[in-house]
Amino acid sequence: MSVQRRAGCSFLFTANFHETHYMDTHDLTRSLQQKNNSKIVMLVADGLGGLPLTPGGLTELETAKTPHLDGLAQRGILGGSIPVLPGITPGSGPGHLGLFGYDPLQYVIGRGALEATGIGFELQPNDVAIRGNFCTLDASGKISDRRAGRISSEESAPLAVKLRQVKIAGIEVFVEPVKEHRFVVVLRGPGLGGNVHDTDPQATGVPPLDPVGGDAASQKTAAAAKEFVSQAVKLLAGQPKANGLTLRGFAAKPALPSYLEVYGLRAAAIAVYPMYRGLARLVGMQIVGQAKTLEEQIGVLEAEWNNYDFFFIHFKYTDSTGEDGNFAEKVKKIEQLDAVVPRIEALKPTVLIVTGDHSTPSFLRSHSWHPVPTLLLSDCCRSDGSTGFGERQALRGGLGQFEAKHLMLLALANAGRLAKYGA
Amino acid sequence: MSVQRRAGCSFLFTANFHETHYMDTHDLTRSLQQKNNSKIVMLVADGLGGLPLTPGGLTELETAKTPHLDGLAQRGILGGSIPVLPGITPGSGPGHLGLFGYDPLQYVIGRGALEATGIGFELQPNDVAIRGNFCTLDASGKISDRRAGRISSEESAPLAVKLRQVKIAGIEVFVEPVKEHRFVVVLRGPGLGGNVHDTDPQATGVPPLDPVGGDAASQKTAAAAKEFVSQAVKLLAGQPKANGLTLRGFAAKPALPSYLEVYGLRAAAIAVYPMYRGLARLVGMQIVGQAKTLEEQIGVLEAEWNNYDFFFIHFKYTDSTGEDGNFAEKVKKIEQLDAVVPRIEALKPTVLIVTGDHSTPSFLRSHSWHPVPTLLLSDCCRSDGSTGFGERQALRGGLGQFEAKHLMLLALANAGRLAKYGA
Repeated sequence: MSVQRRAGCSFLFTANFHETHYMDTHDLTRSLQQKNNSKIVMLVADGLGGLPLTPGGLTELETAKTPHLDGLAQRGILGGSIPVLPGITPGSGPGHLGLFGYDPLQYVIGRGALEATGIGFELQPNDVAIRGNFCTLDASGKISDRRAGRISSEESAPLAVKLRQVKIAGIEVFVEPVKEHRFVVVLRGPGLGGNVHDTDPQATGVPPLDPVGGDAASQKTAAAAKEFVSQAVKLLAGQPKANGLTLRGFAAKPALPSYLEVYGLRAAAIAVYPMYRGLARLVGMQIVGQAKTLEEQIGVLEAEWNNYDFFFIHFKYTDSTGEDGNFAEKVKKIEQLDAVVPRIEALKPTVLIVTGDHSTPSFLRSHSWHPVPTLLLSDCCRSDGSTGFGERQALRGGLGQFEAKHLMLLALANAGRLAKYGA
Repeated sequence: MSVQRRAGCSFLFTANFHETHYMDTHDLTRSLQQKNNSKIVMLVADGLGGLPLTPGGLTELETAKTPHLDGLAQRGILGGSIPVLPGITPGSGPGHLGLFGYDPLQYVIGRGALEATGIGFELQPNDVAIRGNFCTLDASGKISDRRAGRISSEESAPLAVKLRQVKIAGIEVFVEPVKEHRFVVVLRGPGLGGNVHDTDPQATGVPPLDPVGGDAASQKTAAAAKEFVSQAVKLLAGQPKANGLTLRGFAAKPALPSYLEVYGLRAAAIAVYPMYRGLARLVGMQIVGQAKTLEEQIGVLEAEWNNYDFFFIHFKYTDSTGEDGNFAEKVKKIEQLDAVVPRIEALKPTVLIVTGDHSTPSFLRSHSWHPVPTLLLSDCCRSDGSTGFGERQALRGGLGQFEAKHLMLLALANAGRLAKYGA
């Protein structure tokens, strides 16, 4: 029942710290973190937030029968998580970075790095990741179709694999198919910079641009990219659709401080899809288990319970059904999520959070900016009298509306893992 | 029904406008402040916010019978004040700086300066304040007990006074007992820097470290501190417990702009405890009266009513009863506070604020991060229909949840003391 009295804070500000530096949340958590045996579970239902189909109606979450989530809400505290800023719709990257406590306006994951992460490619510090697009070139080398005639994945994947034949001196080259005209190139070598302009001219009737580096390290990358394109075009010669390529979103591996360093948390990620495993890996979480279903994910949680302090569980289907515009299916997926809640509760986490990385209202068939209904339960959460888990109650809940990047501060506080700031 | 796909954003920032200067709240109040005859009262009940003892129960404030505060709430507007950031538990220093409108992440009061402030030592611009700890040294000069065998205040105070015999050329030396093994040293002299490392090695079996300065001015301080230690050890020779000392938290006087300068307010502080008088003094408030009880504090308020524009009244016992884990006593202290409200109202302040510097739930027996119930009453506050003063109503009140550093902006606005920003 009780939360341990917090030990005195032992960090010291050096005097010249005063007014020279404005502390960000990780400066705070680094200096205030304290260890204990608490367990934090963050259950992320991707795209959880929704909208009613008709004005004044119920959202997906409000429609779903969620007796267990409602029970948590009655004992816990609700709020609305603003993924980035009011009105800003995030992709999966910024959405999750916010939940993980990394300011998504400060930490930007380059497009190429996110694409590589999304297909499960494990980036290393010497890597530059690039999004490749197959295109169709006419006889004079000008782009006639920027998406290679909407080439199918079946046609394009062998071509991407073929590009692995490219050899560049001193640089390792990886090529991975993605989908349709898209693939990923990773250049691995010392001293490669990520600041290289796209070669896609965003137009037809002109040739692809040459890669140009914005600094010395990136000029090295640009030279390698140019060599890659030159060899690739030879390998693709004679292809009816995909006889050319453009390169976009050059990005070095993002340098994100780890959960262990900034929070003192041994963190585990239990996610089915490569994108979310990859995002978790970028902040130093261990990827545990090989679960393919939500029930299996909870099984991994149970199996790994004693090995970690923090568990990120990712549930994809609240987002994908929203993207499909399938209100009824999203409701069902929320009910499926609700059904596993008792198994999580049975583990008696110190802090249990249920949230989403953004809203994906079926009504919009896309990610949206709306605050995400969020629930936090702990012995000292100051419950707010909510009667159930839904958008309306969340927006008037005791956590108010807050920026997602602050959620980890609340998690740590409720777990007794933050010492007092200042005397 | 459908939402249009968004077109690319085409506007451009002119280059020299972008990112050249971001105004902080004091830049705003400096430029917008205007004078009038309004009176602002900020009644701070230290550690006001609480928690229920059992899930779903009432907090201390919700339990207390507070007819007068409830009356203010019905005519005023409520909100939840976040002292620093969500999840961050402040000490008294950051807690009050926030209420005073000084961003507690920007303005950091060094440990030594706060310790000196806490015992009522009035720091001057040429001072460096240091926390001293008596310790026990073995025959070889190594620390055998970092707290001098838990020496009592009765034993240690005369030893601290004895250290006033230290003489350092060109520097005035002050030594003040604090409690048990703790004392304060203030070195006063021109050009002393506060960036000196602690001499406490945070371990036994090793000698204290030498003080080391991080810049030229601080090297001067370090040299003086070394001389202080050398003479002090001779003065303590033969003491069974306290025959040595370590120095920590070196800090120059914090440079905080004054209430008069940033707000145009002649401000008075009516506080019983030295810490809060000291914090108020750091932002340029005048300490008025010698009140020892809340009733006497209100008497001082009445007596000084015509002499100041702003009154900070500090009530300690809502915090100390919370720290004691004494729910019932905290309830009584809140009721005691309620009883003086009519006397404050009778003065007809233009703006009356009731808040706390942080929460101190009896349940946790410590400061906490929970938002602090806050009440603001003025003729133009846009009352929100609250029926009483308590955590739940406050968190759903018309002020929403706001960072404490913004409360002074609201106070000034409601007092008609802020001009329009921009034309």
